[in-house]
Amino acid sequence: MNVQAKAGFLDRTLRNLRKGLRGMAGASYDADHASSRPDLPDDDLARLRDQMAACLEGKGGEVSARTRAARLGHVYLALDDTGKERYLRTLNDEFSVPTDLVDAAVSDYQAAADPVARSKAEAGLREALESPRLKLLRQFNDLPDGVKFLVDMRATLLPLSRKDPSLRPLEQDLKHLLSSWFDIGFLELRRITWDNASAALLEKLIAYEAVHTIESWDDLKNRLDSDRRCFAYFHPKMPDEPLIFVEVALVNGMAGNVQALLDADAPVQNPQDADTAIFYSISNAQKGLAGISFGNFLIKRVAAQLSNEFKGLKTFATLSPVPGFMNWLDATFAEGKAKLLSAAERKALLAATGESTGAKGQLKALLSEHAWAENESLSSTLKPILLRLAACYLVDEKRSGGVTALDPVAHFHLTNGAVMERLNWLGDTSDKGFQQSAGIMINYLYDLGSIDDNHEAYADGGRITASSDIRGLL
Amino acid sequence: MNVQAKAGFLDRTLRNLRKGLRGMAGASYDADHASSRPDLPDDDLARLRDQMAACLEGKGGEVSARTRAARLGHVYLALDDTGKERYLRTLNDEFSVPTDLVDAAVSDYQAAADPVARSKAEAGLREALESPRLKLLRQFNDLPDGVKFLVDMRATLLPLSRKDPSLRPLEQDLKHLLSSWFDIGFLELRRITWDNASAALLEKLIAYEAVHTIESWDDLKNRLDSDRRCFAYFHPKMPDEPLIFVEVALVNGMAGNVQALLDADAPVQNPQDADTAIFYSISNAQKGLAGISFGNFLIKRVAAQLSNEFKGLKTFATLSPVPGFMNWLDATFAEGKAKLLSAAERKALLAATGESTGAKGQLKALLSEHAWAENESLSSTLKPILLRLAACYLVDEKRSGGVTALDPVAHFHLTNGAVMERLNWLGDTSDKGFQQSAGIMINYLYDLGSIDDNHEAYADGGRITASSDIRGLL
Amino acid sequence: MNVQAKAGFLDRTLRNLRKGLRGMAGASYDADHASSRPDLPDDDLARLRDQMAACLEGKGGEVSARTRAARLGHVYLALDDTGKERYLRTLNDEFSVPTDLVDAAVSDYQAAADPVARSKAEAGLREALESPRLKLLRQFNDLPDGVKFLVDMRATLLPLSRKDPSLRPLEQDLKHLLSSWFDIGFLELRRITWDNASAALLEKLIAYEAVHTIESWDDLKNRLDSDRRCFAYFHPKMPDEPLIFVEVALVNGMAGNVQALLDADAPVQNPQDADTAIFYSISNAQKGLAGISFGNFLIKRVAAQLSNEFKGLKTFATLSPVPGFMNWLDATFAEGKAKLLSAAERKALLAATGESTGAKGQLKALLSEHAWAENESLSSTLKPILLRLAACYLVDEKRSGGVTALDPVAHFHLTNGAVMERLNWLGDTSDKGFQQSAGIMINYLYDLGSIDDNHEAYADGGRITASSDIRGLL
Amino acid sequence: MNVQAKAGFLDRTLRNLRKGLRGMAGASYDADHASSRPDLPDDDLARLRDQMAACLEGKGGEVSARTRAARLGHVYLALDDTGKERYLRTLNDEFSVPTDLVDAAVSDYQAAADPVARSKAEAGLREALESPRLKLLRQFNDLPDGVKFLVDMRATLLPLSRKDPSLRPLEQDLKHLLSSWFDIGFLELRRITWDNASAALLEKLIAYEAVHTIESWDDLKNRLDSDRRCFAYFHPKMPDEPLIFVEVALVNGMAGNVQALLDADAPVQNPQDADTAIFYSISNAQKGLAGISFGNFLIKRVAAQLSNEFKGLKTFATLSPVPGFMNWLDATFAEGKAKLLSAAERKALLAATGESTGAKGQLKALLSEHAWAENESLSSTLKPILLRLAACYLVDEKRSGGVTALDPVAHFHLTNGAVMERLNWLGDTSDKGFQQSAGIMINYLYDLGSIDDNHEAYADGGRITASSDIRGLL
Repeated sequence: MNVQAKAGFLDRTLRNLRKGLRGMAGASYDADHASSRPDLPDDDLARLRDQMAACLEGKGGEVSARTRAARLGHVYLALDDTGKERYLRTLNDEFSVPTDLVDAAVSDYQAAADPVARSKAEAGLREALESPRLKLLRQFNDLPDGVKFLVDMRATLLPLSRKDPSLRPLEQDLKHLLSSWFDIGFLELRRITWDNASAALLEKLIAYEAVHTIESWDDLKNRLDSDRRCFAYFHPKMPDEPLIFVEVALVNGMAGNVQALLDADAPVQNPQDADTAIFYSISNAQKGLAGISFGNFLIKRVAAQLSNEFKGLKTFATLSPVPGFMNWLDATFAEGKAKLLSAAERKALLAATGESTGAKGQLKALLSEHAWAENESLSSTLKPILLRLAACYLVDEKRSGGVTALDPVAHFHLTNGAVMERLNWLGDTSDKGFQQSAGIMINYLYDLGSIDDNHEAYADGGRITASSDIRGLL
Repeated sequence: MNVQAKAGFLDRTLRNLRKGLRGMAGASYDADHASSRPDLPDDDLARLRDQMAACLEGKGGEVSARTRAARLGHVYLALDDTGKERYLRTLNDEFSVPTDLVDAAVSDYQAAADPVARSKAEAGLREALESPRLKLLRQFNDLPDGVKFLVDMRATLLPLSRKDPSLRPLEQDLKHLLSSWFDIGFLELRRITWDNASAALLEKLIAYEAVHTIESWDDLKNRLDSDRRCFAYFHPKMPDEPLIFVEVALVNGMAGNVQALLDADAPVQNPQDADTAIFYSISNAQKGLAGISFGNFLIKRVAAQLSNEFKGLKTFATLSPVPGFMNWLDATFAEGKAKLLSAAERKALLAATGESTGAKGQLKALLSEHAWAENESLSSTLKPILLRLAACYLVDEKRSGGVTALDPVAHFHLTNGAVMERLNWLGDTSDKGFQQSAGIMINYLYDLGSIDDNHEAYADGGRITASSDIRGLL
Repeated sequence: MNVQAKAGFLDRTLRNLRKGLRGMAGASYDADHASSRPDLPDDDLARLRDQMAACLEGKGGEVSARTRAARLGHVYLALDDTGKERYLRTLNDEFSVPTDLVDAAVSDYQAAADPVARSKAEAGLREALESPRLKLLRQFNDLPDGVKFLVDMRATLLPLSRKDPSLRPLEQDLKHLLSSWFDIGFLELRRITWDNASAALLEKLIAYEAVHTIESWDDLKNRLDSDRRCFAYFHPKMPDEPLIFVEVALVNGMAGNVQALLDADAPVQNPQDADTAIFYSISNAQKGLAGISFGNFLIKRVAAQLSNEFKGLKTFATLSPVPGFMNWLDATFAEGKAKLLSAAERKALLAATGESTGAKGQLKALLSEHAWAENESLSSTLKPILLRLAACYLVDEKRSGGVTALDPVAHFHLTNGAVMERLNWLGDTSDKGFQQSAGIMINYLYDLGSIDDNHEAYADGGRITASSDIRGLL
Repeated sequence: MNVQAKAGFLDRTLRNLRKGLRGMAGASYDADHASSRPDLPDDDLARLRDQMAACLEGKGGEVSARTRAARLGHVYLALDDTGKERYLRTLNDEFSVPTDLVDAAVSDYQAAADPVARSKAEAGLREALESPRLKLLRQFNDLPDGVKFLVDMRATLLPLSRKDPSLRPLEQDLKHLLSSWFDIGFLELRRITWDNASAALLEKLIAYEAVHTIESWDDLKNRLDSDRRCFAYFHPKMPDEPLIFVEVALVNGMAGNVQALLDADAPVQNPQDADTAIFYSISNAQKGLAGISFGNFLIKRVAAQLSNEFKGLKTFATLSPVPGFMNWLDATFAEGKAKLLSAAERKALLAATGESTGAKGQLKALLSEHAWAENESLSSTLKPILLRLAACYLVDEKRSGGVTALDPVAHFHLTNGAVMERLNWLGDTSDKGFQQSAGIMINYLYDLGSIDDNHEAYADGGRITASSDIRGLL
C-alpha cells in the first residue's frame, strides 16, 4: 500500500469513528432538551447560567438535580466549537470558589486554639475551597457515558486553557475529579485479541496508535498474532474505550528494527519459545486524561503477567523512538555550539561528501533527505557520528535548568526505573523515523531486580543509568 | 418455625458469612507479610509507622509504593480489635495535615493580588489541606477488594470516632474519599432474583435486611417470587456486595399489613394485573457508607423501572414502620406533658379497663403486653387514641430546635418528596412491631407529579404534606 | 435438626421446586392454546390426533409446522396424569413405523444386486424404519425449554412403559433421540460453588442428591466449602439443570466415614495440602435420561481437572455405599443357604447374645435395631463376620446367570475400571446406612495407570479386581 | 477502490482466515500424535485402519475410546488432500453396515408374528443398519471443535462423493448425524453488530458473503450501520462460526437497486421511520451443511423480531438476484427456440442497432458488453424485452420434468411462501449483475398473512404466485 493509501486508511477510520460519536450523542442523550443555538449566543448563555445555578441549588432534591444536569450535558454536546468555549468559560468564571466563604474559613482557621478546633477549621476551609463548578461537574457523571463526557470535556478544554490561563481553574477541577475516579485500583487490565475484541474497539486502536501508525486491518491483525500481545487499561464506566495500550512482541533476543518486527510476512514464532518481550508501542488513548498517568503500571503489570504465562521470558525491554533527537540537533546547530563534532568526525564527513560547506551544514544537508541510508559508504561514515550524538542527547541533555531528561520518551522510561540498554542504527526506516531520529531507535531495559533503585537514582538526582555500550559511545 | 429457630437461622447465617470473610482475608491477601502481632504492641507500631512513612515518600516509584501499601493492608487485616484501633489512631494522629504547610499556603492566599494569583493560591491551599493519610488510604485501593477494605475500615472506625472525636479527621477523610468513589453515577442498579443471584449474595440479603427479618431461605424465596421485586445498588469493584436494597410487592390497592404481605402461603398474583407497587423494606447494607446516601435514587429509579415494565401500575407507596413512636410516647408520659389525652379518651380508657390508676398509666400498662390486640373491645377502644397519637408524633414532632421530622423513617421519605398517606392499624403484629409502634404502620406515597414540590416544601421549611385522612386524625 | 425437621426441609424444597415448574409451564408456553380438558377425553383426543397428523404433513411449511408442534406441546403440559398417558399412548400407537413402507424397503434391499444398490437400499430401509412419531418429537425441540420437555416426557413415560411393554417403541424413540442430543461432546462440565451458582440451581442439588440427603442450606454450604468440590454436567439448552453431579472432598488419607466427612463443625483444611480426592456422592439428576450414562466421563474428567489444579493429589477414590448388602443377606438367610456362617462365627455370635435361636436368626435380630453399634463388645463380635460377608457379597455375587456384579454401585465403578480398595466398618452410621449395609462403606480406587486394564478384565469376563485387604477377608 | 484492489482485499482476508485455521489445527489438537505422513501411504493407512477398529471395540472403556478417537482426528487434520481422501475412503469402505447382521435382522423382522415382536424386530433392524463408521464419527465430537471438525469433513467429502458415488454412504451418514445435531431448536439467532462482534467473526462474514461481495472493512461497517441489520444462526458448539446469515436494510418503500442500498455515502436514516425491511443478501456459511436448511427459519424469525422492534414496518421483502436468467437465455438461443422474441421486439431491436444479423444474435451481442446500459436509447429499447423474458424465465420455466422453478433463488423463496412482487430494471449494475441477469433484480414479498397458502400452492403443485405487475409482463 502506498503512502496515500495508508493515509487514506487512517483518515477513513477516523471519519468513521467521528460519525459514530455524533451518532452516540444523538442516541444517548435526549436532544429535545438541547434548545440552545450551536454558538450559544448571549441570551442562550444567560439562560444556561440560570439553569446551572438552579442545578447547584438542588431544587426538588438530588434526583431532580441530576436529571437537570443531564439536560445541561445535552446542551453542551449539541454546541459547536464557539458555543463549547463559551459554555466552559461560564462554568469557569461564574461558578468559582466564593472568596468571602474562603476568607471566613481562613479567619476561623487562624482563630482555632486547639488541635480539635484546628482540624474542624481545616475541614471547613477544605469545604470552602471546593468550587460550585466541581459539584456541577460531578452531577454530569449521571449522564449515560458521563465519565467519557467529562474526559472529552477536559480534552476540549486543555488547548484552550493553555492559550488562556484564566481557564486553568476549571481544567484543574476536572483533573482533580478525574484523578480520583481513574485511580489505578479501579482500572481493569485486559488483553485485546482479534477473537475477543469488537471491531468498534479495534478501530479505536487504529485511531489512537501514536507511535507506529497501524496501516490497515491486516497490519492490525498481524499485531495481534499468536506471538504478539496487546494489553490495555479500561475504566468500568468506559468499557469500550481503552485508556492506554501497549503492543508487545515475543521474540528471541533484543529486537533492533521496528520494520522487521511489524513485517506481516515474517514467520509467526511459537511464543512459548521466546526469551524476550519487546514493548514496541505504548499509546495514551484519551487526551482528556493528560497528566493522569498509567503507563508505569501498564508496563510493569503486563511484564508480570507475561512472565507468569511464558516461563522462558528472561528479558523485558522496549524498542523505542528517540523523538526529540533531530530537533535537538537542529537547534544545537543553530546555536552554533562549538565542539559538537570532533575533528575526526569533521574530517570523515568532509571526505565522504567532498564538499566544503562546513561539517555541520553538510551533516544537516545529508540528513535532510534519506537517500544517505541507501548509500552504504555514506551510511557507514554517519553511523558512529550519529550514534555518538544520540547518546549525548539521551544521556546528557536535560530540560532547561533541571534534572529531567530532555527526551520525553527517555524521561518516561527512566522514571519507571528502566535502563538505557542499546542504540539501534537504522532501527526505524520509516519517514517519521528518519525525521525524528535519523532512523535511530533505543532499547530501554526493564530489569525487575533493579527497577526501584534506578527509579530512585533518577527521581532523586536525575542520575541516568545507561549500559556500558551506550556509555562507551560518549 | 418458632422464635428460637428463627433467631438460630439468622445467627447461623451471620456466622457462616463471617467464616467466609475470614477466609477471604486469608485467600486474597498474602498473609506472610503480616508479621505484626495481633494487638500491635509498641515496637510493631513503631515499625508500622515507618513503613507508612516510606509508602508516602514513594521510594522506588509508584508501583512499588502500591505494593508496599498492600502489605500494610495485610497487616491491618490480621489485627485484633485493639490492634486495629492502634493502627487507625496512628494513621489519624501521625499523618494529619502539616500545619506549617497550611499556614504558609494561607499566607500566600492572603498575599494574592489578582484573580489569577488567587486561584493559584487557592489550588495551593487546597493541596496543603490534603492530609498524607488520605494519600495512603487511596493506595489501599490497589488491594484485591481494596474498596471493600476501605468501606470496612470506616465501619470499624465510626463507633470509635463517635466515642473519641479526635479520631474524626481520619473518619472524615475516609468519608470524603468514599463519597467520591461511590458517586451514584458509578453504581449499577440490579434486580436480584432467585434465578440470577448466587447463594453467597442472597445470604448477604438475609444478613443485611434491617426492617423485617428474613426468617429462612423459604421466606427469602417468597420475597423473590414472581409478584415481588428486589433491587440493589452495586459498585463495580464490589460486584457481590449490595450497597442498599429495596423489596417491593406488586399488589392491588394500598397494602396495610406486612404479615399478610410476607405470608408464604398467600397465592401468587400475576404482576401484570397489579396497580400498586409497595416498597415494604429498604436496608442499607454497608455500615462503612453511613452518611453517603443512595436511598433516594434507589426508590425513584426502581419506581421508574417498574412503571416502564408494568403499564398497569398507578400507585407507588411504601409500607413503613414508625420506629420512634413508642419511645416518644414513653418519654412524653415521663415528662408528664398535660393534655396528651383528651377527656373523652381518658374516659374511654377508664371504662375499658375499670381501673383508676390514671389514664396514662393504664395506657402504658395495657400496651406493655400485647394481649390487648387480641381483645377486640380493648383494641377498638385503643385504636382511635393510638392512631391520633401516632399522627401527632409523625406530623408535629420535630427534632429538638429544628424543622426535621422526629421519626427517622418519616424524615427519609419526606426528604425524598413523599407524602404521608395512610396509617394502618395492626399493620405489623410482630413483637418488634408492637414494641416500636403499637403495631401501627404507615404508607408514604410517592406521587411522581408532586415529588419535587413536596421535597422543596419540606427541605425549605419543614412543611410536612399529609393526606386529609391523616390530618383528620389530629 | 431432628429427623422431622430434616424431612420437612427436603419436602419444602421439593414443593417449592414443583411450584416453580408449574410457573414455568404457564410462563414459557402460551396456555391459551391448551384448549383440551386435563384428562383428554375421547373427542379432545381425536382432535389432538388430527393436529398431530397435520403437523407431520407439514402443511404451510416447516416453520408453521414447528409452531403447531409447539401448540401440541402446550396441550401436553396442561394435562393431568390420565391425559398425559392417553397423549403418549396416541403418539405411540398411531404414529408408529408404517409396516407397508418397511416391507417394501425390505423387498428392495433383498433385490439389491450390487454394493451401490445395496447401500442405497440400506438408506431406504433406514428411512422407512424412522417412525413418524420421532419426527414429531423432534419438532417439540422448538419449544422454549424443548429439550427439557422431551427429557421430562421420557421421565413420565418410563414407569408406564415398564408396566406396559407396548409403550416401549415410543420410549425407545425418545431414548434414541436424546442419546444423540446428549452426546458427551455437547455437555459442559462446570464447577458449582456457593459464589457462582444461583439459589435456583442449588435448590436442584438439594432435590436431586440421591446418596446422602442434603439436610439444610447450611449442609449444602458446607459441601461447597473451600476443601470440597462439586462438579456437574450441563447441556447447552438446559443451562440451569444439572444432568449428573459429583461431590468431592479433598482430604489427607483415604476417608472411611461419611458422617465425619459431612460434619459442618470439622475444621476446613487447605486444599493445597490434600493428597486424596474422595468422591463421596454421585447423583443422576434427570430421570428422563435413564440409560444414557455420563458418570464414567464425569469421574474421570473431574479427576483430571483436580489433578491439574492440586499438584499434591496422589489418590482418587470414592467413599461409596454398598446398597444391596442387607437385602442380599436377608434373601440368603431366607433361602437357608448352608455355610453362610462358619462354625467359629456361629460360636462367637452365640457367646455374644447368650441365646439359642440359631446364629442366622440372631444375626438378623441383632441387626434389625442398630443399638448393637453402640454396644462395643457386640460390635467387635459382629465386625469380622459382617466385613467378611460384605466382601463375599461384593466380590463373589453376580447378577443371575451373568458376569455382572450384583451390587449396582460396584458394577458402575468396576465398569469404569476402578478397584475395590477397602471396606470401612461403621462408615455410614445413618439410618439408611444401617438399613442398607449394616453401616459398612467401601472405597473404590481409581488408579489412573490401571483403569483401562481393570475395565477390560471386568468387561470381558467379569473379573473383579480387589485389594489384598479385601481378598484377605474372604 | 478499483477492481484489483477489491479482489485483493477479499483474497487477503481469505488467506488470513486460512492461516488462522492452520493455527487452530496446531493449537487445539495435539499434533504430536499425528504420526502419519501427509499422504497416508499404505502402511500408515493399515495402521490407521487398526486404530479405527480398536476405537470401535471400545477397549479400555468409553473414555479411553474417545481419547483415541481424538488422536485419529489429529491424524486427519495433519493430512494433505491425497491423505484425506484415502482416510475418508477407508472410513467409507471398511466400516460400513455389516451385511450379515442386516440379513439376520431382516429375517427376524419377517418372522415377527405379533405387533410387540414386530416393534422389537424393527428396533433390531434399525440397529443393524447403523454403520460402525457412524459410531466412530460420533466419537470425534469429543475433539475440541469436534462439531466443526465433522462439518468440515463433510465439506471435503461432498465434491469427492459427487464424483464417486461409492463414497455416498459416508457422506449420508455425516448428513444424518449433522441433521440431528443442527436441529433448528438448538440454534441461536444472534444479531451481529460492529460493536458486539469480534474481528474474527466479522472476517468470516467477509469471506462467506455469497451474494454481494463485501469489498472492505468500510463496506462491512456500512452494512452494520444503524439502519441495517445482520442476523445469523449459530450452534452452541461453534459459537464463532455463523451457519447462515442475512443482511437487511430498513428503508422506505420497496428498494429496487442494490448499489444504492450499499452506497456508503448515502445518508443514514432513522430505522424507527422505516416502513420496509429489505432482505438483500442471504448466505450459507458452512459448505459441510449443504442440504441441511435454515434459510426459511432465518427469514421468518428475523422478520418477526424486526416487526416486534420496529412498529412502523409494514413490508418484508427481498431484493434478490436472478442468477440463472442469462444462462437460460443463452441456452434457449442456442436451442434456436422459435418465438422467443415477438415480431415487434425483433423490429425494435433492428431499429435500435441498425444491423441485420438477426434479432437473437443482436441481443446476445448487445448484452455481451454492458456499454448498452449507458446508452439511454438502447437501454430503453431493451428494457421491455428483457423484463418480459425475465418474467417468462422466472414464472414459466421449471426444472426438467418437474414442478420446481428453474431459478434456484426463486425456488428457495417460493418454497418459503413468498410471492414474486416486482422486477427491477438496472437493479444490479455490477459486472456480476450484468453477467447473471442483464442487471435485472427481483423483489420477493413475504406477506405474513398468505405465506402458508403460497407455500402449499407451490409445494403441492408448483403453482407460482406472482403480482399482477409481473403477470402483466408475460
